[in-house]
Amino acid sequence: MEPLEQQQIEKALKELSGWKHEDDKLWKKFEFSDFKEALAFIVRVGLEAEIMGHHPNLFNVYNSVSIGLQTHDAGNKVTEKDVNLAMAIESIA
Amino acid sequence: MEPLEQQQIEKALKELSGWKHEDDKLWKKFEFSDFKEALAFIVRVGLEAEIMGHHPNLFNVYNSVSIGLQTHDAGNKVTEKDVNLAMAIESIA
Amino acid sequence: MEPLEQQQIEKALKELSGWKHEDDKLWKKFEFSDFKEALAFIVRVGLEAEIMGHHPNLFNVYNSVSIGLQTHDAGNKVTEKDVNLAMAIESIA
Amino acid sequence: MEPLEQQQIEKALKELSGWKHEDDKLWKKFEFSDFKEALAFIVRVGLEAEIMGHHPNLFNVYNSVSIGLQTHDAGNKVTEKDVNLAMAIESIA
Repeated sequence: MEPLEQQQIEKALKELSGWKHEDDKLWKKFEFSDFKEALAFIVRVGLEAEIMGHHPNLFNVYNSVSIGLQTHDAGNKVTEKDVNLAMAIESIA
Repeated sequence: MEPLEQQQIEKALKELSGWKHEDDKLWKKFEFSDFKEALAFIVRVGLEAEIMGHHPNLFNVYNSVSIGLQTHDAGNKVTEKDVNLAMAIESIA
Repeated sequence: MEPLEQQQIEKALKELSGWKHEDDKLWKKFEFSDFKEALAFIVRVGLEAEIMGHHPNLFNVYNSVSIGLQTHDAGNKVTEKDVNLAMAIESIA
Repeated sequence: MEPLEQQQIEKALKELSGWKHEDDKLWKKFEFSDFKEALAFIVRVGLEAEIMGHHPNLFNVYNSVSIGLQTHDAGNKVTEKDVNLAMAIESIA
């Protein structure tokens, strides 16, 4: 799995509302009405990640869930796997 | 906690779309697009139930979740607790 | 996917402590200390099921989780998929 | 809710194996055999947190879950609530 080039990432981000490319990660902060909604979202994302065989960095504080995506096997850079997972997460949220 | 009377249950059901009163239970079958959505719903309902200190009977087959509500401490009849939990579940779904 | 024969099922059950073969299903009732433990188990089983592409019938009442396994595409009989999922669930519990 | 004094925190940490006090947080990194175990743990901790009305900072990367505890209403310092939640989490893990 090869890291995407900057141009490819920028193209992908056009379809990923609210996602950013920083520190070699795709990331977005999601906010919910409460912790219960946030936890259900984490479970839903976790199921998708497990099926895709690619897992996010998840950071949860009460009603917020920040998700960071990068590919370990590509030197912790952004690959197509991260773009695919971001799109799957976006369609869940 | 006293069982509700038939009239009270019928009144409550008017605000609970798709819920039925059968076999001394309030129940409804929810259907989702897939198992992942169904499981996230179960977690979300579970958190609500735990907070309310009142738990549903949950039956899950793939993308469907059937929920039955009755109160053990009221001879397995329907009480206000069941109506409250049904309303909370309805606002989640 | 072919249904297993009675002899094959009996052989499999020897390695599945507490599981029974009834009504064309493999099933077992699990009991936990409370609802929280039961829900975490449901999530853990759900992740396994989603990965295996084969889903259980789950029935939860407070601290108990009854699991029934059968294969829709084999006329709702028990197949090797059910035995494999039962073994995976057993190693979780 | 008052922040605990350093001496009180040190006393609490004696009963909290593997927990540390850093940056005004109690924290510990838990490692599991895989992501599925990690996610079930997050759900289990989430249920406890919701019941206690006090929520952790959760950071998940694949099979690891780092938990940080501090009390927003006490200037993001460690209070008795954090010690109680740490003890509850410890008894889950």
